[in-house]
Amino acid sequence: MRATVFRGVGDFGLEEVEQPRAGAGEAVVRVTSTTICGTDLHIVRGEYAVKPGLTLGHEMVGVIEELGSGVHGFQPGERVLVGAITPCGQCNACLSGHLSQCGHGTGYEAMGGWRLGNTLDGAQAEYVRIPSAQANLAPVPAGLSDEQVLLLADIASTGFSGAESGGVRIGDTVVVLAQGPIGLCASLGARLMGAARVIGVDGDESRRAFARRMGVDVVLDPRSQDVVAEVKRLTGSGADVAIEALGAQETFETALRSLRPGGTLSSLGVYSGKLQLPYDAFAAGLGDHRVVTTLCPGGKERMRRLMAVVQSGRVDLTPLLTHHFALKDIRDAYELFGQRRDGVIKVVIHP
Amino acid sequence: MRATVFRGVGDFGLEEVEQPRAGAGEAVVRVTSTTICGTDLHIVRGEYAVKPGLTLGHEMVGVIEELGSGVHGFQPGERVLVGAITPCGQCNACLSGHLSQCGHGTGYEAMGGWRLGNTLDGAQAEYVRIPSAQANLAPVPAGLSDEQVLLLADIASTGFSGAESGGVRIGDTVVVLAQGPIGLCASLGARLMGAARVIGVDGDESRRAFARRMGVDVVLDPRSQDVVAEVKRLTGSGADVAIEALGAQETFETALRSLRPGGTLSSLGVYSGKLQLPYDAFAAGLGDHRVVTTLCPGGKERMRRLMAVVQSGRVDLTPLLTHHFALKDIRDAYELFGQRRDGVIKVVIHP
Amino acid sequence: MRATVFRGVGDFGLEEVEQPRAGAGEAVVRVTSTTICGTDLHIVRGEYAVKPGLTLGHEMVGVIEELGSGVHGFQPGERVLVGAITPCGQCNACLSGHLSQCGHGTGYEAMGGWRLGNTLDGAQAEYVRIPSAQANLAPVPAGLSDEQVLLLADIASTGFSGAESGGVRIGDTVVVLAQGPIGLCASLGARLMGAARVIGVDGDESRRAFARRMGVDVVLDPRSQDVVAEVKRLTGSGADVAIEALGAQETFETALRSLRPGGTLSSLGVYSGKLQLPYDAFAAGLGDHRVVTTLCPGGKERMRRLMAVVQSGRVDLTPLLTHHFALKDIRDAYELFGQRRDGVIKVVIHP
Amino acid sequence: MRATVFRGVGDFGLEEVEQPRAGAGEAVVRVTSTTICGTDLHIVRGEYAVKPGLTLGHEMVGVIEELGSGVHGFQPGERVLVGAITPCGQCNACLSGHLSQCGHGTGYEAMGGWRLGNTLDGAQAEYVRIPSAQANLAPVPAGLSDEQVLLLADIASTGFSGAESGGVRIGDTVVVLAQGPIGLCASLGARLMGAARVIGVDGDESRRAFARRMGVDVVLDPRSQDVVAEVKRLTGSGADVAIEALGAQETFETALRSLRPGGTLSSLGVYSGKLQLPYDAFAAGLGDHRVVTTLCPGGKERMRRLMAVVQSGRVDLTPLLTHHFALKDIRDAYELFGQRRDGVIKVVIHP
Repeated sequence: MRATVFRGVGDFGLEEVEQPRAGAGEAVVRVTSTTICGTDLHIVRGEYAVKPGLTLGHEMVGVIEELGSGVHGFQPGERVLVGAITPCGQCNACLSGHLSQCGHGTGYEAMGGWRLGNTLDGAQAEYVRIPSAQANLAPVPAGLSDEQVLLLADIASTGFSGAESGGVRIGDTVVVLAQGPIGLCASLGARLMGAARVIGVDGDESRRAFARRMGVDVVLDPRSQDVVAEVKRLTGSGADVAIEALGAQETFETALRSLRPGGTLSSLGVYSGKLQLPYDAFAAGLGDHRVVTTLCPGGKERMRRLMAVVQSGRVDLTPLLTHHFALKDIRDAYELFGQRRDGVIKVVIHP
Repeated sequence: MRATVFRGVGDFGLEEVEQPRAGAGEAVVRVTSTTICGTDLHIVRGEYAVKPGLTLGHEMVGVIEELGSGVHGFQPGERVLVGAITPCGQCNACLSGHLSQCGHGTGYEAMGGWRLGNTLDGAQAEYVRIPSAQANLAPVPAGLSDEQVLLLADIASTGFSGAESGGVRIGDTVVVLAQGPIGLCASLGARLMGAARVIGVDGDESRRAFARRMGVDVVLDPRSQDVVAEVKRLTGSGADVAIEALGAQETFETALRSLRPGGTLSSLGVYSGKLQLPYDAFAAGLGDHRVVTTLCPGGKERMRRLMAVVQSGRVDLTPLLTHHFALKDIRDAYELFGQRRDGVIKVVIHP
Repeated sequence: MRATVFRGVGDFGLEEVEQPRAGAGEAVVRVTSTTICGTDLHIVRGEYAVKPGLTLGHEMVGVIEELGSGVHGFQPGERVLVGAITPCGQCNACLSGHLSQCGHGTGYEAMGGWRLGNTLDGAQAEYVRIPSAQANLAPVPAGLSDEQVLLLADIASTGFSGAESGGVRIGDTVVVLAQGPIGLCASLGARLMGAARVIGVDGDESRRAFARRMGVDVVLDPRSQDVVAEVKRLTGSGADVAIEALGAQETFETALRSLRPGGTLSSLGVYSGKLQLPYDAFAAGLGDHRVVTTLCPGGKERMRRLMAVVQSGRVDLTPLLTHHFALKDIRDAYELFGQRRDGVIKVVIHP
Repeated sequence: MRATVFRGVGDFGLEEVEQPRAGAGEAVVRVTSTTICGTDLHIVRGEYAVKPGLTLGHEMVGVIEELGSGVHGFQPGERVLVGAITPCGQCNACLSGHLSQCGHGTGYEAMGGWRLGNTLDGAQAEYVRIPSAQANLAPVPAGLSDEQVLLLADIASTGFSGAESGGVRIGDTVVVLAQGPIGLCASLGARLMGAARVIGVDGDESRRAFARRMGVDVVLDPRSQDVVAEVKRLTGSGADVAIEALGAQETFETALRSLRPGGTLSSLGVYSGKLQLPYDAFAAGLGDHRVVTTLCPGGKERMRRLMAVVQSGRVDLTPLLTHHFALKDIRDAYELFGQRRDGVIKVVIHP
């Protein structure tokens, strides 16, 4: 079968590899749609290390091809969504509810829940093997297309969890720093939870315009506007929740300074290096401040709930899928997505 | 001034009474819109006891007429919404976050937060005196009409709190038992918080139709349908949250039986007499079940947040205001509302 | 091997049965200590139905005899504690954190987490097969005896979870209705969480005396004292949390009436038939009341945490183990325990 | 009367000033015991700015001397404890439960709950005026001495809240960075909540020895031990909760690195300048991490609960009161406390 193989920094592409077989507790899924994540870009650029030879990709909708021994309640041929995080459900982390810190049967492992396209062969291929399949195959309800649910595997789940971890309440004001795919999904999540006002911040005019079309109430341009002052002007005391969805020093600091006393900073960004925490800003609102970092929780139950909300029509993620590619053109897809050309938000890859 | 005075069971009406004056920590508000609550019906029917001579009503939008000593940050002439619950903020209950159990400076008092139209003269009058005014005057944002915010004083706040206490999550299925004013608002609250599917149950066809128009996803008729079986059929395991908004044995039991194992029953109804708790149903889903009763929390901060969500356009309560009356016709309003004639949901009274 | 087999109502005893073998994902544990639960009495008396031929018992400390395929990170010969609830970790219930409602790979099942001595052969035997072994074998830290940890499998975990579900805070007053084994453990749990005052209620003088020795601050006798009045006298407003640990109409009602407005009733009892809920008591404290039912959560991670607190010396459960029996004398043990003779609290069975 | 007046950086001392009178909503308390806080040292050293002429001190036990109009339920002559934070209960922050961010009737104000010895004359005097007296006078139960409750006004409340905000559960491992007065109280709070193991870290040998005597399970010396490695060795995965109680770059970083994936850092320290957040450490445990900052919540209800736990005998704070001074010798007390001489932990000042 064909798979998108990472060979080394800057070097990756389609290769013919052996089709995986399902061992005990595993499943093999024939991928019908997959996509590219910002994390995949980090990998091919050498900013996040994986072993050469790894098949990339951690988001997929597909059809069950094979079920290993001990996996029950599913049928080959069933359409399923698989989360980017594939928790085992049976380690100390999972049994404590920390699915993304899955220790694969024992203990805790930092980010251990993310295995596909990280430590196991991933989804940008014709077939993919799913570990802990019992916990990770989520049947797609009849009537939902691949495009409607594909983004729930990672960015929408992550974006929504930014709002969930932030504890957004009915009537809150929520500032979302950056309106890329995850920031947009965080904005949608805040709306879904009843925020009265979502303020989207992004330096890119087309992303601000896109955010407005997706229902973000107010957009701000950090290049020409004093975001903190503007949030304070709109709210009086500051935002109830700020969601950082970029992973940079400046947005983290803006998020913190935009909060009202006692507000919550929900951090989704993946930072590199040291972060200069503006502790004077922290201290100025001393007390009750929370900084919460979130890696999207996975598992079939979360996928089920998120598909239910799409099915209800409350949220539509398909406008984010701006471009389509066949698997054979995956390098073109990486290039377009990596360069943010042509107003791309997310791409769909069809194996 | 004119006020709607309770004289005894079955006997109430407009009287000329002395206009109230604001003592220390109090305010007088000129009422511009008020409404009638099911609780007011209970009072005039003798099902809930208050002292003869009391002015009825606990929901109001108005204009600050007078501010007592020690109340600062407000101006006479300012438009305000006042919650049905007027907590003091300074007793043990309030300082613990139990605003509806306000002990008026000391301790806890069951339902003590509800004072207007209960133990103090109420809002179905030209003027009303507000206790603990510092904590209870919520300025109405410019651009919002009386009709847009009036129901936030009680039924919408109560209905939303049914969803909030139930812990509704993105993607949940929520069953709401009865689709009267509070049940409708509970349904709207569940939607606001991201429920994927709200199932409204009511034996009255017009109320089911109204619920559908307000966005309830599925409506069920308990007179012709087996609600529990239908909820199980739609969900597999049962509802994540059930909200009881009627106050009857049958709806309570249906709510409990509709839940999935580990689900939450949020109870808004006011029951009388003993309730036969179907503990076998409880036991069948033994473990993790929660039954939460909620009396709407009040205070200016909650009013502020709820007005923000109306201002955002996320929810519109004005369709519930089906009929308008002048204060002089308040007995006609009670009659129409009490008899549920002409498709009435809620009435507005204009003093 | 020998096992305690249920043959029919009132008929059970030791039999020679085949020693179990570990299938995929399972383990066989050689039992070194087990005990009898009130639930076992319900079974042999025919008050809770199980299939004839079942081996009874759901609490055990033992040594790993055999590990099935796919179970890793353990060694034969290792000493382990197994919880009464053996969640799979991979169904929708488990992935939602409702371990006691485990659906065995799929969905939710009411009380589905309890399998041993219920739907699978149990622990009152020389060997027992453990399902979902990866999630359920908790290594016993060196230095801890069987007696120190045995009760953590069920009654102490359940009792503590009564306090945990009740949300006991530093300085709270907690009333615990009945001071049998679970009630005692609930009292210990409330103390562990920082309750300022634990009030234990029991009609049996020796149990009140035992409770005092275990550190319960105040004991009340419902036969000679008005418990509700006494709790109100001691607290002013009522208890912050009431824990029902008997499963009777009267104790449930006392628990509810003892609460302050806004308090929490944590219900551990297993009720039969209909419960007459005193909704007037509920209504009198209308608002913010919570009734939480709890079935002890299981899994190796909870067992690990509970063993850690025993190891720290914060709590000592060994005084509850008042009598010891060899497996061959198990019928004597049932008789003593069932009749509550000789001041028995719990018995240890040594296979 | 005599009061400890701040005149300018490095310049403060006893002065004869006018005795305060209680205005509306206020009370005057005759101070019987007060103490010195690290924050007072920051003020006299010029590290935290207050207006010259201010009376210092924010912790007190005393006797009600005078009650202003509108304060009810108290009697002159009653012994009371007053928290360092004196929330109004009626602003948006207080009504949201953020008492330490009290906006004095309106909005939110960062650290606005701290008024005594900050923006209003404080407690190191013979008499002190208490704002929002209705919310802030907590009667001392009969039988409790000044020494037993004095530290609840601030450091014990703050320390305990570090454990509470951290969400310490039964069986958790908690690391507390620095074992000064607040760190010790955080350690005691973690024990009170059921932590299985409290690890106290401090470079000062006498403080480690004191911590051991107060019940801290393990002490570590950061000067000679690798704290992070040691915590990982003791726990396997890291601590469930880390409490920072010093306010320094190094301890914050150690706290963060000591956590297990998904753990919580509860930050009590007051930092100055920028904090270099080791985001790589953050990122390594990416997901579910929480950093919570806490300023002690105040109000009479919290004081009541904390006095209840002292009264129960669960915790004894008097060993922390190592030295006593008369008010006339307050400068000596500041000197001893500021230089940490003679094994001082906290001093008591008797006006």
